[in-house]
Amino acid sequence: MTTKPERLKALREELNRQQLDGFIIPLTDEHMSEYVGAYAHRLAWVTGFEGSAGNAAILLDKAALFVDGRYTLQAKDQIDPNLIEDHHFETYPLLDWVLDHAPEGARIGYDAELATVGWQQTATQKFAKKNINLISVETNPVDQVWNDQPSAPLDMVIPHADKYAGQSAADKRSEIASHLREKGADAAIITMLDSVAWAFNIRGSDVDNTPVPHAFAVLKNNESAVLFVNDQKVDENLRVHLGNSVEIKPRDAFYQYLSEFGAAGKTALVDPMSNNAKVFEALESAGARLIESADPCIIRKAVKNTTEQQGSRDAHVRDGAAICDFLHWLSVEGPKGNVDELKAIDHLWNCRSRFSDLLRSSSFDTISGSGPNGAIVHYRASEATNRKLEIDNIFLIDSGGQYLDGTTDITRTVIIGTPTNEMKDRFTRVLKGHIALSTTKFAHGTSGHALDSIARHPLWQVGLDYDHGTGHGVGSFLAVHEGPQRIAKFGSPVPLEPGMILSNEPGYYKAGEYGIRIENLVLVRQVDEETEYTMHEFENLTWAPIDRNLIDTTIMTAPEREWLNTYHQKTYDKLKDIVLPETLEWLKYATAPI
Amino acid sequence: MTTKPERLKALREELNRQQLDGFIIPLTDEHMSEYVGAYAHRLAWVTGFEGSAGNAAILLDKAALFVDGRYTLQAKDQIDPNLIEDHHFETYPLLDWVLDHAPEGARIGYDAELATVGWQQTATQKFAKKNINLISVETNPVDQVWNDQPSAPLDMVIPHADKYAGQSAADKRSEIASHLREKGADAAIITMLDSVAWAFNIRGSDVDNTPVPHAFAVLKNNESAVLFVNDQKVDENLRVHLGNSVEIKPRDAFYQYLSEFGAAGKTALVDPMSNNAKVFEALESAGARLIESADPCIIRKAVKNTTEQQGSRDAHVRDGAAICDFLHWLSVEGPKGNVDELKAIDHLWNCRSRFSDLLRSSSFDTISGSGPNGAIVHYRASEATNRKLEIDNIFLIDSGGQYLDGTTDITRTVIIGTPTNEMKDRFTRVLKGHIALSTTKFAHGTSGHALDSIARHPLWQVGLDYDHGTGHGVGSFLAVHEGPQRIAKFGSPVPLEPGMILSNEPGYYKAGEYGIRIENLVLVRQVDEETEYTMHEFENLTWAPIDRNLIDTTIMTAPEREWLNTYHQKTYDKLKDIVLPETLEWLKYATAPI
Repeated sequence: MTTKPERLKALREELNRQQLDGFIIPLTDEHMSEYVGAYAHRLAWVTGFEGSAGNAAILLDKAALFVDGRYTLQAKDQIDPNLIEDHHFETYPLLDWVLDHAPEGARIGYDAELATVGWQQTATQKFAKKNINLISVETNPVDQVWNDQPSAPLDMVIPHADKYAGQSAADKRSEIASHLREKGADAAIITMLDSVAWAFNIRGSDVDNTPVPHAFAVLKNNESAVLFVNDQKVDENLRVHLGNSVEIKPRDAFYQYLSEFGAAGKTALVDPMSNNAKVFEALESAGARLIESADPCIIRKAVKNTTEQQGSRDAHVRDGAAICDFLHWLSVEGPKGNVDELKAIDHLWNCRSRFSDLLRSSSFDTISGSGPNGAIVHYRASEATNRKLEIDNIFLIDSGGQYLDGTTDITRTVIIGTPTNEMKDRFTRVLKGHIALSTTKFAHGTSGHALDSIARHPLWQVGLDYDHGTGHGVGSFLAVHEGPQRIAKFGSPVPLEPGMILSNEPGYYKAGEYGIRIENLVLVRQVDEETEYTMHEFENLTWAPIDRNLIDTTIMTAPEREWLNTYHQKTYDKLKDIVLPETLEWLKYATAPI
Repeated sequence: MTTKPERLKALREELNRQQLDGFIIPLTDEHMSEYVGAYAHRLAWVTGFEGSAGNAAILLDKAALFVDGRYTLQAKDQIDPNLIEDHHFETYPLLDWVLDHAPEGARIGYDAELATVGWQQTATQKFAKKNINLISVETNPVDQVWNDQPSAPLDMVIPHADKYAGQSAADKRSEIASHLREKGADAAIITMLDSVAWAFNIRGSDVDNTPVPHAFAVLKNNESAVLFVNDQKVDENLRVHLGNSVEIKPRDAFYQYLSEFGAAGKTALVDPMSNNAKVFEALESAGARLIESADPCIIRKAVKNTTEQQGSRDAHVRDGAAICDFLHWLSVEGPKGNVDELKAIDHLWNCRSRFSDLLRSSSFDTISGSGPNGAIVHYRASEATNRKLEIDNIFLIDSGGQYLDGTTDITRTVIIGTPTNEMKDRFTRVLKGHIALSTTKFAHGTSGHALDSIARHPLWQVGLDYDHGTGHGVGSFLAVHEGPQRIAKFGSPVPLEPGMILSNEPGYYKAGEYGIRIENLVLVRQVDEETEYTMHEFENLTWAPIDRNLIDTTIMTAPEREWLNTYHQKTYDKLKDIVLPETLEWLKYATAPI
């Protein structure tokens, strides 16, 4: 795709009609989603840029796109520099650019459904310097001129059975109702898609790779609820599942409902981090009283119940077998020069597919990076970039599955042929960090950001690091990226609690040469010993061999070697009866002690 | 002290006069200080509780004091349970208690000079449930009835010479003025005492142990400033030091000035974390435009310039010699049974005093804890609690000095007699954590909270931990607790930058038996090697032997033993010519290799 001048022209005519001097286009949807449906890809439609993160400002005579480091090259590729400037969002942020280029007193539009109140405040404050007015538009000007804009998805909403969810939706709403009464709120306004899915034990297929339906919800302090979802997506089966205390209303009746709620003088619990600014506008202008507090589904969704924990264990054994089948195939076909990145993605999907009774989709677009492509952290192989797996090159594959009983996410890094000493040193340091985090015990109350350095320590000591977090929360047949738990330099302050699932994925990336990442999922559990402090530790969930050919055993300690051998032994024991018959010999070899 | 019923009675009569149903008494001052002058100890005057943290709510028929875990016992000791309930502030917070006990529609007073806007909002929101009105009082009712309330201190404000400060006050104001112009603010409102002291290169003695004068300031975007300080504290010398672009106004003209500033339609940079709520009220009600942003002195003060860095190194050598003289004396007198906690405090002060050309005061009240008293983290010895140092007991001493060229803070833990194996195990684990943090390298951009686990790791692995942060920022002849840097489970997200000084103080506390803490100060510096990432590390500042009798060498690694031997060798080399002659032999023994 490249920038289409006629689209910019049409948009500017619409801006003129709406008496705006500019318009701001983020890449999100009305649920503040990380991944959005096609209908919400306004940024790509207007600018031509198809990356998964960025924003743009369109003035009447100038336009600019703002992306982060991973998308700088792609932006230059996809947009027309004569029509749209491109900038790194950190070195030249959008609001600064607008301030520099919009005329004094300009009227700059934005869509309150696609912004947080925090952003609104920052922008208003910044723009005040030049008397620029931030105007909340009635209708999004992009939608006005985007003739073939895809409609919002109409896939059916399906019940998520209690045998997977482990807690009935009525139970969940009862817990939240009591939380609301404690807070003095009449209802919570829920707009995060996976919160809605969790609260009602429903799933959908409106977003790629994340099994959520497109819906809003209001959870009341009397345990009843309103679910705002398009009528065409609801069948009798779902109505029975939802029960009598859930009222179903059309999705586009949501804001009107909030106004009526406000007009009745009620008190809403709203979350400035997850609710969009239009939710606040609708409530406030109608006179609602607001209590700002985190979406109460978020922390409850993050702490998996025992059914979800067991589901995840089961899903991971299945997934590990598929990964082994794939790695075995790769060990045979890779060295022949028969495999490229796209073929690897296809074959891995085929391997997972034999569990199609429970498998529903990938949990994200597989990252399949050969040689230098592996060094691009969020790489997505395409026909244009597709590389063969070559001898003496490193191959990195990061993938996951959505099973009814659990969501998986695993990265393995393998050498085709023979590694250099540097490759082995780097891989082993990443592994040492992975092991250190995997085996650490930590006191109750410790949050993920406090643990981040444990995984980086072996790299830091020789001046190396990696430019991404060490671990993210993972949902239960829900989003593969889930908060509030997180292990990162700038993580959330939320303590890690027994029942939370996180990834453990340190890495190392040498630009232009190779990328290394070793990722397992782990489950937080309480240490089963009498100790002075209540301690937690991680239970490992992911089972698949870690490439022994990439290990420099001389820089591993005895306990580290012991950890790896035990991990491999357990991997063999758990998977030997599930892998394909032709994989077994390979598995035995790949899990042999070092 | 115990609760005086006549004071409660007088206060309640005043509440009646002010038509209030209750009043909230925090323990802070109008600068949101951690330590407050005697005039601001309203909590102690009203309740009898003399601890350094807590708050109280006084209703017409009931009253309650809220303290944290370290003060539970002291509270029970000092207050009369018939007059005042006492609660743990976490399990039963003040606002909840007021909500439970104040009548529907009550008028509860608070002093906006002693509250943040954040607290105001939380309280307002909480109280709304029961239609309780939060009333900002005109005059603090406690001050109205506290007849012999000490007056605000009148000590002279003195210049802090550029040879110690390393940067002229004019230079500092010029940097801040340019920051203000960038932010679009006319002026910054500075109310933190150490920020004021830093910005003008002035010091004072209005607060115990922290050499700051009692003052407010307004720093303008044209590099001029107003200093609000009592006229009696200013002499000609100071006027010359401040120069022509600093206007001096009386301290109590501050809020009036803010109102005039607001009435002139100006824009103020205000810090909701450090400015009190009355600052916001004065500005907002007069129509000022507010930009909320961190006090711009804070981060600049935290990053020491090269003069301050060298000053700190010099001060620490001096301080280390005094500590050695003290530890030597202790090694002689301790086993004789001649030393108690208070005597130790006195003698340590005597040791430091020989550097009185530069020493100005302690940097905080020395913590001197023998045996079980050492397990009380914020222990303060008194005649009532004073213990002898006994054979086979651990003694912990945490102290610091305020030198013109730097602030010190050091904890040493020593055994009088012979330690148990458990003591050695615990001490050695604390030391391992201390060494691990001291030697880690970390990537540029890493904040202190990400490093916290490195110091806890050796304790965590056996189910132990400590209930305090691992490190706090330290000022330069300023506050011994200084932000924004901090190493803690819930630290600040501010990255550690070269030039910042922090403490490294893991510990272990066995209630009723002993306390262990090993604390050195460290300076963040950039690693002086070509590495792929920009790395930082810590330069050690504190030099004094770590008790070898408490070490179990069998659980130390070779690099850890090497670190200790090198540290001791350096300690000997740096101090051998400065310690008292009689200390030298002891120093040689105490720093011999293990």
